[in-house]
Amino acid sequence: MDGPTLHDVAARSGVSIKTVSNVLRGTKGKVSAATAARVYAAIEELNYRPNLSARRLRTGRSDVIALVVPDLRNPYFAEVATAMIGAARQAGYTLLIDETGGDPDVELSAAEGLYDPLIEGVIMSPLTLDQRQLGRRSRSIPLVLLGERDYSGPCDHVMFDNIEASYQITGHLVEQGYSRIAVIGRQDDPPHATAVKRLKGYHKALRAAGLRSHRALAPVVPGAPYSKTAGAQAAHQLLRQEERPDAIYCFADVLAIGALRAAHEHGLHAPADFGLAGFDGVEEGRFTIPTLTTIAPDFADMAALAVSALAERIRSTAGIEHRDIRCRYELVIGESSRRSPASAPAS
Amino acid sequence: MDGPTLHDVAARSGVSIKTVSNVLRGTKGKVSAATAARVYAAIEELNYRPNLSARRLRTGRSDVIALVVPDLRNPYFAEVATAMIGAARQAGYTLLIDETGGDPDVELSAAEGLYDPLIEGVIMSPLTLDQRQLGRRSRSIPLVLLGERDYSGPCDHVMFDNIEASYQITGHLVEQGYSRIAVIGRQDDPPHATAVKRLKGYHKALRAAGLRSHRALAPVVPGAPYSKTAGAQAAHQLLRQEERPDAIYCFADVLAIGALRAAHEHGLHAPADFGLAGFDGVEEGRFTIPTLTTIAPDFADMAALAVSALAERIRSTAGIEHRDIRCRYELVIGESSRRSPASAPAS
Repeated sequence: MDGPTLHDVAARSGVSIKTVSNVLRGTKGKVSAATAARVYAAIEELNYRPNLSARRLRTGRSDVIALVVPDLRNPYFAEVATAMIGAARQAGYTLLIDETGGDPDVELSAAEGLYDPLIEGVIMSPLTLDQRQLGRRSRSIPLVLLGERDYSGPCDHVMFDNIEASYQITGHLVEQGYSRIAVIGRQDDPPHATAVKRLKGYHKALRAAGLRSHRALAPVVPGAPYSKTAGAQAAHQLLRQEERPDAIYCFADVLAIGALRAAHEHGLHAPADFGLAGFDGVEEGRFTIPTLTTIAPDFADMAALAVSALAERIRSTAGIEHRDIRCRYELVIGESSRRSPASAPAS
Repeated sequence: MDGPTLHDVAARSGVSIKTVSNVLRGTKGKVSAATAARVYAAIEELNYRPNLSARRLRTGRSDVIALVVPDLRNPYFAEVATAMIGAARQAGYTLLIDETGGDPDVELSAAEGLYDPLIEGVIMSPLTLDQRQLGRRSRSIPLVLLGERDYSGPCDHVMFDNIEASYQITGHLVEQGYSRIAVIGRQDDPPHATAVKRLKGYHKALRAAGLRSHRALAPVVPGAPYSKTAGAQAAHQLLRQEERPDAIYCFADVLAIGALRAAHEHGLHAPADFGLAGFDGVEEGRFTIPTLTTIAPDFADMAALAVSALAERIRSTAGIEHRDIRCRYELVIGESSRRSPASAPAS
């Protein structure tokens, strides 16, 4: 390279190379606006153009990784994206975000990392991609999946134990005295992995409490990812039944928010008329009326674990076996599931 | 390049080059899973590695653009991001998304596009960046801002007329018969541009209706972007006043959702006890109880306009003067502002 270098820019602006580098990376809070302006002025005067493409070609490293989620408008994935941007920046990676809409073909392409050859690794939250489809991967681009293990093959899974978490939140409803507990989120065709795990935990908790599960109390929810509209439709179906549930546990907060709205249209309100629980710990559930009982993953923990597992795969020259990595989560008890002494069951 | 080419992959897998390209790009719905598997197998057999970095170096084009927003967890910016991903893909660009947290230094770095030299252009929703700071830009990387014109200089602004939209929604509250209309979203130090415009439209509508504006009815909201917590705090302040407002207009749906929750804690509910309006048209406001009256921008229109303006700047060899580009929006009347005949004002 014959043009001006980072050293020239640092010398001209009277700051360290590290400072120039911070300015170039936009590292938050480390450089004052005045210093940044000096650095930009030096860059302009010297006509410096950082040639990362050349470096990338030489070293084969781009320091770009991708996060692939179904839909950013779903607040759960927005939380995940924000946490990943932070964790990636911390680890020195640029994060590229893309959406799949839950389409298995798009998910498979993303798992190949082929849609942008700059990408050194992929963190993906798959919805519909199954073992068979993932088996078709031909590239060995490092891959970390967010979600339960349903796949073998050389990638990692970062997630908490969904069966256990689902068991806990159902158990909480049982402890509150609810006995006719419906669930919103079942998926039959094709079943999405999260739905299967959460349904298992729910059934396990019902069995442990000696409660029966009725198929009529577990309406099928179409589409992935889960949506508020789907939650509202399923709740309408439940609340039109003669023997109404006394509690509804939704496999996602967005489903629960849809269910709240549907119940309101039936003149029913949680927790006076029925207990309600969600799943995902999104901010929205702390502002609903009532606030939502939910399972809240530790998003920062999840992101740090995923980025560090991916970085390890990117750096490693040997193959790394599949790893299951557990992130923290907690059961958050909101107003929606607290049985007030004065209220009577809806049925 | 001596290695296998796209042509070789197409020949080996028995499909067209366009199909191989669609597989590589992950273009949704165009290629069956079986065909994609054939293409991946051919890629593997030939050890084909698309060398975009080399092409990029040769042509100087990366086809990567960035979208920079304050916070993806804010549903408004999540809507913007999803729309931009779609519009960018449509136009053949890879979109990289980053967050600034509203920090002016980070916003300035983003406006320089310097934090990743691959980036050919930037679409940014600035919160705190002002004329003076933007004047310090030294690189002429193409820039499109989402927001009202408060800057000169060679960039475009894509947004609807915030003063006019704010005037319309305030006018709607006046038409419903509200007369003591509070506003949540004023910002004094530093004023963020959106707050200034929306306050202007509000004042204009009050004057047109012969209504007075009280400073006590426009509490200051700290922090940017707006948050639910800030909306709740401001509503508490308003609702503790002796002479309570009969309507509250919030400069963002997230503020209105926080205000709804705060009012609930005072035992007050919209629209029975007060009229409520938001701004931004986020999906969440269609599921709140009551549904929110709001100004809904046409996100797809906004994204298409921004990407096409940016593409024009990237392609152009001559300088392009500043352009103000208007996107579509509409006043959506929800349940929150409809004065039911039976209800009495709260005060």
